[in-house]
Amino acid sequence: MKDPERFEKQMAFIREIDKEKMIKRQSYLTDCETHENDAEHAWHMAIMTLLLSEYSNSEIDVLKTVTMLLIHDLVEIYAGDTYAYDEEGKKTQAEREAKAADKLYGLLPEDQAEYFKSVWLEFEEQKTPEAKFARTMDCFQPLILNDATDGRAWKEHDVRLSWVLKRNENVRLGSEDIWEYEKEHLIDRNVEKGNIIDDSKDS
Amino acid sequence: MKDPERFEKQMAFIREIDKEKMIKRQSYLTDCETHENDAEHAWHMAIMTLLLSEYSNSEIDVLKTVTMLLIHDLVEIYAGDTYAYDEEGKKTQAEREAKAADKLYGLLPEDQAEYFKSVWLEFEEQKTPEAKFARTMDCFQPLILNDATDGRAWKEHDVRLSWVLKRNENVRLGSEDIWEYEKEHLIDRNVEKGNIIDDSKDS
Repeated sequence: MKDPERFEKQMAFIREIDKEKMIKRQSYLTDCETHENDAEHAWHMAIMTLLLSEYSNSEIDVLKTVTMLLIHDLVEIYAGDTYAYDEEGKKTQAEREAKAADKLYGLLPEDQAEYFKSVWLEFEEQKTPEAKFARTMDCFQPLILNDATDGRAWKEHDVRLSWVLKRNENVRLGSEDIWEYEKEHLIDRNVEKGNIIDDSKDS
Repeated sequence: MKDPERFEKQMAFIREIDKEKMIKRQSYLTDCETHENDAEHAWHMAIMTLLLSEYSNSEIDVLKTVTMLLIHDLVEIYAGDTYAYDEEGKKTQAEREAKAADKLYGLLPEDQAEYFKSVWLEFEEQKTPEAKFARTMDCFQPLILNDATDGRAWKEHDVRLSWVLKRNENVRLGSEDIWEYEKEHLIDRNVEKGNIIDDSKDS
């Protein structure tokens, strides 16, 4: 081992991120009982990216996109999970997460801290094809679970169609194909079943 | 969507692998309470590979190694988890897992089924630098958790030093550096603490 200090920093980070497995999300697993956690969510999206990158609107660097999805929720270890439909929480989310990123990535050796932080920022800024496709996965994956559990989390939170459409408005920027499937098979079908409240005719 | 049938196959696989999140391992998370599951384990090792590939004995294709680690336990959805020190279970493990691979990867479109199966087989065969480094991660990661939880799973199973050394005998084939760290900081230290039973002087 040429640089034991460098290795100890990497180990400190590796130990710390174990906490991501304890951050519960609103989505239920397909057993309809267990809340998903952030690490499971990231793992699922990473495999989805390996399989679905062919549907990206633009060609993407798969390793970078997978990296982005594996690490983008790590800030929640310090900043907490903000539910997609928690409007109050979202007001302070960016500030909480930026502080968390400094603290968490600061555990790593400087070069790796900078790289992980830049990939996380790239996701947040939503400008590159990789960031757009990662966002598509980040919206699509919970919809798959919600659909597979007959809308359990949606029903618990009285989720409205307008909220789902707003949350998913940028799915098409990563993949028109996935958006087309998602809208027809996951959103419209669950509105028909009453799992998502149809507020499209409300004034 | 040019080929809806292809997409439906990919979706069937993506839904099915959600079950990996329900496969519990013997390791405890660093909260010392919760058993880790296979998806969390895979996620953790994928990030470890992004950070630690610089210690691989030979240069590795990081995307392929990450892919290998993300998917290599999926066969356990049908074949079940076999604990590292379950000698009875290990007798039938290869056969159970080969059948499971056919069934699970068979959900995918043929090209992707073949690719995932080839990556899984590459891991099993342990010939390439990627497979060797992935095995190093697969041994190293549970040791980190065991060490961080003061050897809880080791103590529950009366784990002996000779078992740990046998299980970890190929860690050095992926990374001499990681083996050196693991032996000194994770194995020897836990023998000293009595978390691993020292049977090195038994006849």
